[in-house]
Amino acid sequence: MREHLIIIKVGGQIVEEETSLRTLLKDFSRIAGGKILVHGGGKGATALAEKLGIETKLVEGRRITDAETLKVATMVYAGLVNKNIVAGLQAFGNNAIGITGADLDIIRAVKRPVGAIDYGFVGDISWVNAQALVDLIGNGAVPVIAPLTHDGKGSLLNTNADTIASELATTLCSRYELRLIYCFEKPGVLMNQADDKTVIPEINPQLFEELKAQGVISDGMIPKLESGFNALRHGVTAVVITNAQGISGGLKGTRLVL
Amino acid sequence: MREHLIIIKVGGQIVEEETSLRTLLKDFSRIAGGKILVHGGGKGATALAEKLGIETKLVEGRRITDAETLKVATMVYAGLVNKNIVAGLQAFGNNAIGITGADLDIIRAVKRPVGAIDYGFVGDISWVNAQALVDLIGNGAVPVIAPLTHDGKGSLLNTNADTIASELATTLCSRYELRLIYCFEKPGVLMNQADDKTVIPEINPQLFEELKAQGVISDGMIPKLESGFNALRHGVTAVVITNAQGISGGLKGTRLVL
Repeated sequence: MREHLIIIKVGGQIVEEETSLRTLLKDFSRIAGGKILVHGGGKGATALAEKLGIETKLVEGRRITDAETLKVATMVYAGLVNKNIVAGLQAFGNNAIGITGADLDIIRAVKRPVGAIDYGFVGDISWVNAQALVDLIGNGAVPVIAPLTHDGKGSLLNTNADTIASELATTLCSRYELRLIYCFEKPGVLMNQADDKTVIPEINPQLFEELKAQGVISDGMIPKLESGFNALRHGVTAVVITNAQGISGGLKGTRLVL
Repeated sequence: MREHLIIIKVGGQIVEEETSLRTLLKDFSRIAGGKILVHGGGKGATALAEKLGIETKLVEGRRITDAETLKVATMVYAGLVNKNIVAGLQAFGNNAIGITGADLDIIRAVKRPVGAIDYGFVGDISWVNAQALVDLIGNGAVPVIAPLTHDGKGSLLNTNADTIASELATTLCSRYELRLIYCFEKPGVLMNQADDKTVIPEINPQLFEELKAQGVISDGMIPKLESGFNALRHGVTAVVITNAQGISGGLKGTRLVL
């Protein structure tokens, strides 16, 4: 029987507010077995950019990253957010190690070609160093991954955290029985954004198209679900979208199915 | 025969200016065998703090770290500076991994007790996880260490990079034939600050006291030399203070001796 691995992507308000972060880390630290935490931090980056007078531009939930914005992202994602998670997990007895895709050459990416939109220093993942992650996990370490990759030529690149989680899952599911959890501030994908009780329990690709057409699913949720379906197609056992409570409560939320 | 390990601490302007950083990383990447890079980043932290309207206070080269300053230090040291070094070393073929003392529980510290001065979130090192570093180095990784430690209770702490380099050297010299290099913008300890040709080739503890009394050695140079002598007393083979050129040029500069 293959070992289990759970990849949890946390984003939005959860990792950037002290109380919700602490609760999440407590629940996360109690998960037995191999695990990886991938985090966002976009709101903190937006706030810091504002204080520094740098304009933030988002297209379909993806940040346009000029040189100054990349510096801000590196400070907030790899510095502030990542290291506070690491210190917090250490306090809960998890031997966390906070890394970006550049560390140990974990995630190589290519700067996105300029098309209709110039995303700037944004990286599309070309290669995941599965062995380095397997070694860390095998040694009992808990990788905490900030949403930055590198091009192997000295440049960091900004990469969507949902995509990183999905690509890691896609690569690692040949080695582990793998579950991928997208954890954000809502209890799942909602039919009505204003009502937390309208969680859609299951979404397949056909329903996804319908919900997009209706405008129920929009913005950052679109790439999240796209990358989730992609992971399922590559052999990931389960993909669930839920909130922090969903981690400890038996993975309630929205389940993606093919 | 024991394996060699070289610990290089770089600080000051070197790691924060693109051209000097690139030269340093090129030279550093060519060093064969086990190596660790410990970096500062204080000037970048000061600049960011200024932009954010946070006042910077230094006493004897040590930063007074309130909660906001700790955030700035975490962003600049563990984020911006650390990850740019890592991406740069990867481009030169070194398998760098950027960490703080919190990652893998590498360096545990105690928040400095409030005495005549309240240093705030500053950590005095209580324990170095030698085995985790030996494992990383044994796997061919190059640890790049930002000057932050943690208290094991969830808090990051700001710790002087010279002290970190010295403590790592002190702990690891039982496992390796170890050289410790302090690399900054001057070619060594200068008799006359205005003249780079006045490098003092060798300093012992008695001369150190005299030079302090004369005011030749002051501010941040005092703890640097103190931690260097401390490392020698614990069995480190060589302690040298030099500039980036000194790394590639056979360790010219100022040599500390007992």
